[in-house]
Amino acid sequence: MSSAREITVTPPLAVSTVIFTLRENERGELKLALPLVRRIRSPHEGKWALPGAPLDAMDDLQTAAASALYSTTGLEPRYLEQLYAFGQVDRSPERVVSIVYWALVGKDEAAAAIESENVRWFFADEVPDLAFDHNLIVDYALWRLRSKIEYSRVALGFLGETFTLASLREVYEVVLGKRLDPGNFRRMVESASIVEPTGERLAGTRHRPPQLYRYNPTRDLTDPDPLTRRTRGTTRGAA
Amino acid sequence: MSSAREITVTPPLAVSTVIFTLRENERGELKLALPLVRRIRSPHEGKWALPGAPLDAMDDLQTAAASALYSTTGLEPRYLEQLYAFGQVDRSPERVVSIVYWALVGKDEAAAAIESENVRWFFADEVPDLAFDHNLIVDYALWRLRSKIEYSRVALGFLGETFTLASLREVYEVVLGKRLDPGNFRRMVESASIVEPTGERLAGTRHRPPQLYRYNPTRDLTDPDPLTRRTRGTTRGAA
Repeated sequence: MSSAREITVTPPLAVSTVIFTLRENERGELKLALPLVRRIRSPHEGKWALPGAPLDAMDDLQTAAASALYSTTGLEPRYLEQLYAFGQVDRSPERVVSIVYWALVGKDEAAAAIESENVRWFFADEVPDLAFDHNLIVDYALWRLRSKIEYSRVALGFLGETFTLASLREVYEVVLGKRLDPGNFRRMVESASIVEPTGERLAGTRHRPPQLYRYNPTRDLTDPDPLTRRTRGTTRGAA
Repeated sequence: MSSAREITVTPPLAVSTVIFTLRENERGELKLALPLVRRIRSPHEGKWALPGAPLDAMDDLQTAAASALYSTTGLEPRYLEQLYAFGQVDRSPERVVSIVYWALVGKDEAAAAIESENVRWFFADEVPDLAFDHNLIVDYALWRLRSKIEYSRVALGFLGETFTLASLREVYEVVLGKRLDPGNFRRMVESASIVEPTGERLAGTRHRPPQLYRYNPTRDLTDPDPLTRRTRGTTRGAA
């Protein structure tokens, strides 16, 4: 890094956020969904794009990513992590480097999200032709989500503080796009010990309602990287 | 991302590179090492820092990262990957956002690297107090290297086209900082099948010289992410 004095003109910098949640389609099936914003000016006027904005000189990158999320959806993330910096020279007519974050929003909160003519939620398998290189960015974020759900507690980002094992399994099924055997799934979760029973059961009318679980922070044995160690406990949702 | 027209002033952007290789210390022990550059102007004048430069409007990010590497060391990377974008508001007196790459250089090539009064190679466990947040960046790059060597072919970035199993094991031992049992290591490598025997043996005077191996591209079953799929075969060293 050089001092700012010798930097005359570097490309402008934007921060965008890929925001995933789970939503039911019209047949009541839970699916991955994300909000997109319609562009109201050139280039790519009228196309859908990821929420984002130029980086304000006073905002940290993560703050800017959370702001894009909040201003688009009115929501706060349960999980927020840097995805990648996209900077190909030809990615937009006037070059912009975009530092992209990805975020997870709880499915109950997401039901209350803002929608309008220019902000709409799309199912991840029905994303239209987007502005710039945003289709590639969405594909990469989906790949990261599917990779990371296999070895981290990222699935909890879609759920509330407490949840049943059936709802946790449903998250894995929707993200991975395949059915999982309930018995095998229960054994996997119990051996990994990243969730624990709360002792409560789901309120309802069933004769024997299912147990509720919560995140078990004492058994999260993943080795945190130096950035996470520095910020753990101080950032919203970062894991 | 918004159009460039509405972006008035965003922070300047630099690209820096953490470059790892393996070098022998004065006792002939192989160790992780990286080149640092002495700052010749304020802020942090006289301190060591990562090689880097302001992003030129005509350079892709990866091109800029490879340039920082080449201008510092005269070398080309065997592996080059984006690490993270560092953008805390207070990370430098005049804010600069740094997009950082990490690179691996083969240990034979690294022996020919440029050194000068203001460019020097340090062992990774003897890195001094660096300018800006560069100690954090080095720690994070080391963490990424140690994580990634466990599940990818990244170790090959330190070696030539062909190598013995003993030299491959030595790479793992140096990076992970622990001795590995030769028999277990051989079984691990054979079951993973990411290297294959060349049929040749190491030239030398020994009665029975060890076999040479090479990377086996047909057995690299890692699922490439969408960015790698797009660029595989077109970028130097990226994996």
